[in-house]
Amino acid sequence: MTFETTKTHIVHGGTLRYLKHDSTATGTPMTLSVFTPAGEGPFPVLIWLSGLTCTEDNFTTKAGAYRAAAEHGVIIVAPDTSPRGEGVADDPAYDLGQGAGFYLDATQAPWAPHFRMETYVAEELIALIDAAFPTTGARAISGHSMGGHGALTLALNHPDLFRSVSAFAPICSPTQCAWGEKAFTAYLGDDRATWDRHDAAKLIAAGAARGIYDDILIDQGDADSFLTDQLKPELLQAAADAAGQKITLRMQPGYDHSYFFMTSFIADHVAFHAERLKG
Amino acid sequence: MTFETTKTHIVHGGTLRYLKHDSTATGTPMTLSVFTPAGEGPFPVLIWLSGLTCTEDNFTTKAGAYRAAAEHGVIIVAPDTSPRGEGVADDPAYDLGQGAGFYLDATQAPWAPHFRMETYVAEELIALIDAAFPTTGARAISGHSMGGHGALTLALNHPDLFRSVSAFAPICSPTQCAWGEKAFTAYLGDDRATWDRHDAAKLIAAGAARGIYDDILIDQGDADSFLTDQLKPELLQAAADAAGQKITLRMQPGYDHSYFFMTSFIADHVAFHAERLKG
Repeated sequence: MTFETTKTHIVHGGTLRYLKHDSTATGTPMTLSVFTPAGEGPFPVLIWLSGLTCTEDNFTTKAGAYRAAAEHGVIIVAPDTSPRGEGVADDPAYDLGQGAGFYLDATQAPWAPHFRMETYVAEELIALIDAAFPTTGARAISGHSMGGHGALTLALNHPDLFRSVSAFAPICSPTQCAWGEKAFTAYLGDDRATWDRHDAAKLIAAGAARGIYDDILIDQGDADSFLTDQLKPELLQAAADAAGQKITLRMQPGYDHSYFFMTSFIADHVAFHAERLKG
Repeated sequence: MTFETTKTHIVHGGTLRYLKHDSTATGTPMTLSVFTPAGEGPFPVLIWLSGLTCTEDNFTTKAGAYRAAAEHGVIIVAPDTSPRGEGVADDPAYDLGQGAGFYLDATQAPWAPHFRMETYVAEELIALIDAAFPTTGARAISGHSMGGHGALTLALNHPDLFRSVSAFAPICSPTQCAWGEKAFTAYLGDDRATWDRHDAAKLIAAGAARGIYDDILIDQGDADSFLTDQLKPELLQAAADAAGQKITLRMQPGYDHSYFFMTSFIADHVAFHAERLKG
């Protein structure tokens, strides 16, 4: 296959591979992990998008997702959050540059040549996964924080690719929070008209999910330190209400922004997707 | 309480605390994590001992143990693997000194003043936990690799303290492997007669578990790179057979020495202990 396997582990009876490949979308090497359940398959695929500062390793080691993936017979693919390396632009801040790709294709210097995470995930990665692993072709997407934003916006912009979408503590409206405004200004420039297709609340308000996704599962900790200033699930709920779109927003009492929050509810998300990926 | 709480997270409905305290046993600050299930309690306690190079954080973030702990209503206490800090002796190798306490009280310089992990875990820590948390007084112990050695030897040497014991990929006979010989020579000196009470296979052969532990659950991956040279579960099985002691040694096909192995079977261990901690 196109992928070079750098590490392999057996976990919950399935096989977890850390992979590396040269991406045509980003023009860099990219890393990811892929869990395949035991057996011949074919299996549906859940794409997992991680948050700011993460590589593929955080979710892979900390989320505890593979028990549910093995139980439901779902492949989980966790890519890195951005291109990386010496020839790739970066910023000293944790919320811009390497580790902070925001799952969009940058149009502005110095980011444009490599920061093409929308094309990477929605075109290149899913095609490579379908070519290398025994997939059914049915696909879901989920993620955390910046990756929750990525899951929502990729699912809403590419409804032909995904049967279901969910998110943990997503950045619900990046055009209306500091993380998003900073990243979108850098990657997309000052013309805010180009930003809206990367804003989940605006997409849902415009009806992008209607007739496509029967429900969108969102878990959000109410003790999350980023809740009020950056994540703003109330904007997503308002957009869904306005558009007549069902979303299931669960405010989880006492939970924060960490992987301890995610590991507590990841099995619910895998089950949510597995139900929609069947058949 | 004696403990300073450095971080708190909600996970699986319970509370996970990272704690710090000044240990009288080691004469240093010590760190640990404690998971308490939701509710008033009282709860039984499972002490988890980690392996070489680990702090309390590896198990806490990667083992995925808290789902089962919440389900069974068990407190899990995960201490660091050694004293640490500038005034504490160390060695550049990963298998000696800080991060490699081997759960014994060192008698040799430069280790003796601080490396007193047997006294720390079996006396100080369990007393502090019982004083600070709503415990029933029933207690179990488990661990991984060096921590599996620690769990077995502390359970066998202190049968009054524990109702059950299990281990993942334990160092079964440290007097007969390079990791153990190196550490015991450094911590205990050249007189091998002082080593035997820190060797699980020798303790079991001498009948130390008989009439105390109805079963000892051991999981071991058969693709573990340390299996043949360091871990040697066949020595534990032979000792158990010779002593008429029941152990359940499960050779898990394809599994390695990593947390992916542990997370696959940790729920079985929590259930094994929960059954014995009841009432």
